[in-house]
Amino acid sequence: MQKPSIPQGTRDFGPAQVARRQHILGVIRRTFEQFGYAPLETPTMENLSVLTGKYGDEGDQLLFKVLNSGNFLVKERRGEITPLVTPEDLADGPRAVLPKIAEKGLRYDLTVPFARYVAMNRGALTFPFKRYQMQPVWRADRPQRGRYREFMQCDADVVGTDSLLCEAEIVLMMAQVLGGLGLDDFTIKINHRGVLRGIFEALGGEGKETDLLVAIDKLDKIGAEGVTKELLEKGFSAEGAARLFELMAAPSLAEPFAAAGTAEGARGLRELTEVRELLAASGFRQFDRLQFDPTLARGLSYYTGCIFEVKINNVAMGSVSGGGRYDNLTGAFGLPDVSGVGFSFGVDRLYDCLESLDLFRDTAETPTRVLLTHFDAATGRAALPLLAQLRAANIPAELYPDASKVAKQFKYADAKGIPLVLVLGPEELAAGTAKIKIMKTGEEKVLPLGEVVAALSA
Amino acid sequence: MQKPSIPQGTRDFGPAQVARRQHILGVIRRTFEQFGYAPLETPTMENLSVLTGKYGDEGDQLLFKVLNSGNFLVKERRGEITPLVTPEDLADGPRAVLPKIAEKGLRYDLTVPFARYVAMNRGALTFPFKRYQMQPVWRADRPQRGRYREFMQCDADVVGTDSLLCEAEIVLMMAQVLGGLGLDDFTIKINHRGVLRGIFEALGGEGKETDLLVAIDKLDKIGAEGVTKELLEKGFSAEGAARLFELMAAPSLAEPFAAAGTAEGARGLRELTEVRELLAASGFRQFDRLQFDPTLARGLSYYTGCIFEVKINNVAMGSVSGGGRYDNLTGAFGLPDVSGVGFSFGVDRLYDCLESLDLFRDTAETPTRVLLTHFDAATGRAALPLLAQLRAANIPAELYPDASKVAKQFKYADAKGIPLVLVLGPEELAAGTAKIKIMKTGEEKVLPLGEVVAALSA
Repeated sequence: MQKPSIPQGTRDFGPAQVARRQHILGVIRRTFEQFGYAPLETPTMENLSVLTGKYGDEGDQLLFKVLNSGNFLVKERRGEITPLVTPEDLADGPRAVLPKIAEKGLRYDLTVPFARYVAMNRGALTFPFKRYQMQPVWRADRPQRGRYREFMQCDADVVGTDSLLCEAEIVLMMAQVLGGLGLDDFTIKINHRGVLRGIFEALGGEGKETDLLVAIDKLDKIGAEGVTKELLEKGFSAEGAARLFELMAAPSLAEPFAAAGTAEGARGLRELTEVRELLAASGFRQFDRLQFDPTLARGLSYYTGCIFEVKINNVAMGSVSGGGRYDNLTGAFGLPDVSGVGFSFGVDRLYDCLESLDLFRDTAETPTRVLLTHFDAATGRAALPLLAQLRAANIPAELYPDASKVAKQFKYADAKGIPLVLVLGPEELAAGTAKIKIMKTGEEKVLPLGEVVAALSA
Repeated sequence: MQKPSIPQGTRDFGPAQVARRQHILGVIRRTFEQFGYAPLETPTMENLSVLTGKYGDEGDQLLFKVLNSGNFLVKERRGEITPLVTPEDLADGPRAVLPKIAEKGLRYDLTVPFARYVAMNRGALTFPFKRYQMQPVWRADRPQRGRYREFMQCDADVVGTDSLLCEAEIVLMMAQVLGGLGLDDFTIKINHRGVLRGIFEALGGEGKETDLLVAIDKLDKIGAEGVTKELLEKGFSAEGAARLFELMAAPSLAEPFAAAGTAEGARGLRELTEVRELLAASGFRQFDRLQFDPTLARGLSYYTGCIFEVKINNVAMGSVSGGGRYDNLTGAFGLPDVSGVGFSFGVDRLYDCLESLDLFRDTAETPTRVLLTHFDAATGRAALPLLAQLRAANIPAELYPDASKVAKQFKYADAKGIPLVLVLGPEELAAGTAKIKIMKTGEEKVLPLGEVVAALSA
């Protein structure tokens, strides 16, 4: 007899939690579909050749790898058995052993599988291709509050167009989803990789762009002082570091960019302006929640244009959404020069925000709206036609399966959050009636049997 | 540059396929919920201690195992490094190595995780506990037509009651789901483990019950002759084997069971009769599709009462649904004597049946209902308010993102299956109108801009 448990960093979702998660997923799905994004689902396992090298060294470490099936230690061919893993491999460590015993891994994000899908199906797809994807991903990260080893992502991407309309629509979708969830107090930060490039060129730190981006990216965590210290360590002058903060605080970057003659900086500002104009033309009215932040860097990955990040205000929680434009996502899979833009919602973080703001409506432990009581075999059987009628009227209903004590049946309805109990005892049956009890108020009503379904449908 | 691929036996689902799968899942989900089953979701990975030993030796082989993260070859504790896998382990083979490098596996079915969940949460759950679960499972089986390594299961189970109402409702749910999908020509086979036990006791083959069940289970595949041959090999007499077929063909088993004095056989017949009575009382009218089959055995697993299996007639496809009653599902996890009954739909098989019977309605490659054309920057921007209104009216719509040639935009609508194209050119804009083209018929209509949303909502 074993005491069962689940792996660290994973979770069971009981009925009330699934209902809440479905509510979040439903709002996101409807928004994506209203904007013309079509659903895609990719396999849980991908070949490690697809996954490795796409998320940096740290990411490769965090991939869950799936052991090859069968006897993974040997290769069998025409009856001849060759050992795959040798004692020397063991001595060389996991880097030597891993490629011989595992060729599949669990999906780490939805972006790489999407790029792989687009490259594999390039001939069959019509571009621009707009897809959304809502699936779990897995990371062998150290579990902590708000960080799980299995969690749900919801991505929408469009590839095959560089129209800034797509960027504007991402802002519209972010606002619509958050509004639909009741999370009205949010900030969408927006920046452009060109702006970061412009700042860099205006500083004149030739060859140290990566160092600069890495330092800026940490501003939230280590503050201006920490960033300055890091820049000095990386060989920037004290003057250059100070200039960075001047630039980032400037009311307009247009002048310093013009002075530095940075084409990328100018492009960044121009595109950000156009996105705002497209939003205004679309009737967007929440410009107070859209904030240009020249320090927003979104890591160092594949972004090349606008970048976004969304936080819920007054909740201690990282970003709940983010994204940006990229120019070469599918290049690693042999399809270069496909521009696209996409973004992602973190469902688990949205869930935690809604919970900490107490924004979930009451969710029951069951979809059942009506419980029919069960006195004895005869009344139980007599309840069956009514049960069928309720269900046919699309009212989730159940007959308590056993002729237990009535108190126990009411306790069941109470524990599950079933709002209505229909008492169908021998008396009611003889009179051709049913007694309805509203569990929340305790109110009771007696109705002719023939009127029950109509009354409950209303 | 690599040519990307996906693992053997797994699939990408593009937009049209996801829409069709969502249709199937929606019919199943609505049915489960109408009958008061509540959703549960369990983690993709389970501890191997939970999974192994539950599916027989063959099942253990087919589990996908997940490699421990980090350096899986050594154990590090307070700076001291001890090798986990030794050259001797390598020589001993995978059975010696596996437990040291993998402690998690992928979900193999939904039944064991359900039992694990019930045992883990026994104190918090109200019984009877009715749950449904719709999640993928993974098996390292040899892929072939209709058999995948990742596939979707939909289970509904109720535990904590032995009421036969639950069995009757399983038949109702099976019929409702198949009817809802348009799969009207089906056969639900029903049997009872007590009947099989009764046949066995009437034959008098003491101690060879397993051999008999295994043989009967193969009747579909190897025919009466094959079963007879197998029984003879297992030491049954020729007379005994012949008597088996007499019994199975008998119009009623009541007499032979009474003659043999088999309590289990009598219980089986009695319960089957009660299930039919409960169905009749519930208004079930498809008794021609419910077939008592005393040869139905459903493997050798944990079933103890009624068992079910569903086939779609006139389609070359295994069973699309099955299930039965069990008495000790949670016993392995320390919670004995919990009776329950459950069943499962195979979504991938239902999908294949619907496809081969051509029962899917046209499914587009996109949710978009209206494409707005994009002539130039000015008309494009002028289209944005209308676009926002369409979406606000819950009509999925998109503006072609670039001012490409109009022919290209129509081709896009055609390829994606978008039913309506709204032409908003300079002429229309000047006249305050829009031209609507119905793609299927080619019909065109000109409407005042202000009437478009109302016209398309209708």
